[in-house]
Amino acid sequence: MKAVGLVVEYNPFHNGHLYHLKEAKAQTESDVAVAVMSGSFLQRGEPAIVSKWARTKMALMSGVDIVVELPYAFAVQKAETFAKGAVSILNELGCRSLLFGSEHGDIQAFTTTAAYTMKHEETLNQEVKKQISMGLSYPAAMAKAFQAVAEGERMLDLSKPNNILGFHYVKTIICERFQMEPETVKRRSSDYHDSFLPKTSQIASATSIRKSLLEKESLRDSRCFLPEASADELNEYARIFGLWHSPEDYFPFLKYSLYMMDTDELSQIYEVEEGLEHRVKKAIRKAGSFLEYMELLKTKRYTWTRLQRMNTHILTKTTKVDIRRILGERRPPYLRLLGMTKKGQAYLADKKKSLSVPLITKIGSFSHPSLRLDIKAGQVYSAPLKEPEQTMLTEQEYSLSPIRYDEDSRTFLRK
Amino acid sequence: MKAVGLVVEYNPFHNGHLYHLKEAKAQTESDVAVAVMSGSFLQRGEPAIVSKWARTKMALMSGVDIVVELPYAFAVQKAETFAKGAVSILNELGCRSLLFGSEHGDIQAFTTTAAYTMKHEETLNQEVKKQISMGLSYPAAMAKAFQAVAEGERMLDLSKPNNILGFHYVKTIICERFQMEPETVKRRSSDYHDSFLPKTSQIASATSIRKSLLEKESLRDSRCFLPEASADELNEYARIFGLWHSPEDYFPFLKYSLYMMDTDELSQIYEVEEGLEHRVKKAIRKAGSFLEYMELLKTKRYTWTRLQRMNTHILTKTTKVDIRRILGERRPPYLRLLGMTKKGQAYLADKKKSLSVPLITKIGSFSHPSLRLDIKAGQVYSAPLKEPEQTMLTEQEYSLSPIRYDEDSRTFLRK
Repeated sequence: MKAVGLVVEYNPFHNGHLYHLKEAKAQTESDVAVAVMSGSFLQRGEPAIVSKWARTKMALMSGVDIVVELPYAFAVQKAETFAKGAVSILNELGCRSLLFGSEHGDIQAFTTTAAYTMKHEETLNQEVKKQISMGLSYPAAMAKAFQAVAEGERMLDLSKPNNILGFHYVKTIICERFQMEPETVKRRSSDYHDSFLPKTSQIASATSIRKSLLEKESLRDSRCFLPEASADELNEYARIFGLWHSPEDYFPFLKYSLYMMDTDELSQIYEVEEGLEHRVKKAIRKAGSFLEYMELLKTKRYTWTRLQRMNTHILTKTTKVDIRRILGERRPPYLRLLGMTKKGQAYLADKKKSLSVPLITKIGSFSHPSLRLDIKAGQVYSAPLKEPEQTMLTEQEYSLSPIRYDEDSRTFLRK
Repeated sequence: MKAVGLVVEYNPFHNGHLYHLKEAKAQTESDVAVAVMSGSFLQRGEPAIVSKWARTKMALMSGVDIVVELPYAFAVQKAETFAKGAVSILNELGCRSLLFGSEHGDIQAFTTTAAYTMKHEETLNQEVKKQISMGLSYPAAMAKAFQAVAEGERMLDLSKPNNILGFHYVKTIICERFQMEPETVKRRSSDYHDSFLPKTSQIASATSIRKSLLEKESLRDSRCFLPEASADELNEYARIFGLWHSPEDYFPFLKYSLYMMDTDELSQIYEVEEGLEHRVKKAIRKAGSFLEYMELLKTKRYTWTRLQRMNTHILTKTTKVDIRRILGERRPPYLRLLGMTKKGQAYLADKKKSLSVPLITKIGSFSHPSLRLDIKAGQVYSAPLKEPEQTMLTEQEYSLSPIRYDEDSRTFLRK
């Protein structure tokens, strides 16, 4: 069986994802779609709007065959590390092609640009450092350096978020010499950052859908941008757990956490760099909400997402040492299976023997610093819930086996 | 001017406290009443029902002239340490008498018993150890050891909570050779632990008053047990801050805290002894409320209050090292003034020069590990509040000067 890999967050799974998924299977003529998905917290540092289990269900009902978790240590990261972690996991699972959405839409530009940057790495790095020292954020410095170095060449626009991610996917494939064919589809939705739902399309950005869900506390306006399975699952989640997760929900815990840490401790947290600990301590005393806190915190030097990731690392008490230890390894530490269809199960049965890292179906005796971090992230994720929902959600981390979906009868199988 | 010292928590200030206060001034013929009061968290490990500022106001309106804070490091402690801290502060402030309420009511028994235990300390300690090794809690072992050693003698009943505290006040005075005359009045209320409001008296236990306040979320049933000033202040507090504090309010933060700490870190927390860290980690995963958690935690070996104090130390991340450093000093580290009447102010002006430790009226440049701990306790204390009340209460720690009360015009003076 041939498998195509997808790097996803499904926050939540919407029509654009469905389009992407169908294209992936069709374009690459694959039998199986494997998605590597961020868990409780996402690449931009936000909590997922619903749990990884709910998002896994949405994916399986919509045609994904296997969902594995991208560990926290790779997920809540800048594009480069995120891409490396995700693509390595897909490679480990035997995906021979990778399909990603991008603003650009032509794979040639990605391979050319990746090759070009690898060749001129030294020059580029120097230019990036120079730009950063002039006060630019990392992504802005990267885009600028790129412009300067590759002047005249027809290169990818690296100021677009999905181009950046795709670029790093392709670069990982080349660097690691993975036997994996990258493909891209042009994103049909409006801009990634668009915060308003469109009027004339059935595809909207996940950002605008989340915004509508969290502000309206209802599916009313966003239903038409979601497959029915997603809408149902979102409703079910709110019914059981009483909320959809938003960064504001975590503010009391962030505040408590910051009160309890002195600047020394704080400076050991991952992504707390260059005296940010003082800025953070100062901001938290004045802020009455997460938004106020972020407004007090932000500078030209750091992007919003960079600071949001830092906050999540503060919440989960993830230190520089923790991350260094996990990222130091060459391979992904394990494959944590969140869910599969019958076809996915058959595919896995076939691949099982050739895996070079453990496939985890349930947290039992297996222990690893990265897995402990995932569990901790899950515990933080459930913190804003009321009881007994809080305990229920936290315990799913230990008790839930991978979700099995029978795509023929369209039912979930329960052990 | 002659000053009588009182060791108080005023949680909240009720008719029994008023009686005690009047007796104190009358019996000792003092001009001034000085109260040393626990701050955000109390001897039994609970959060105070309202802030130290609100409780200071109640005290001043009811006839106390000076309120100083008993630092957290002494307040959230077993009777012995609590007593030592409190009495040392009163001595420092020049109180020549100390009046405390007790179940026994006759000071002779306290001095006799204190002298007896000091003489037979070695034998008693051995007996206490023996009883503890047989599975008794510290207070129970103490009472039992006492019975065994002092057989036949007419001694104080050390199974009563206020007798225990009084015993330690008297012992401190003797040990430290303070020039301070201890006096006791028999408590007029029913038992300290009584959880029901009485029908035929205007004096009820603070426990029963708190229970009624927190359960009914109203002053309805407890108003007749409180001076008007207390009732008004309680109402005002709920109006401004939206709640009266109860241990349950802190459960989400306790849970989050425990999730974030591994057993190693946990074992460094003060009062986490003898493998309690494992018991705690196990209990927190199952508990849906503070009460459930405590039920899972409790054993014959530890009293409820001992465990409650431990939880508060977990919440405030107070380590064994923190406490050792603070308690290592001989004198109270500072005197933090919370409030005073005009008469209290005159008294302090007179005493100021002879103080051997700093008198703190506002948190500015003064820094001390114990004060930092008090500030941290204040931050934890405000954690369950909504915004902007949370920020408001936390900032009172820095911004509020001591409360000044004009006892003649019955008004608070604001700078």
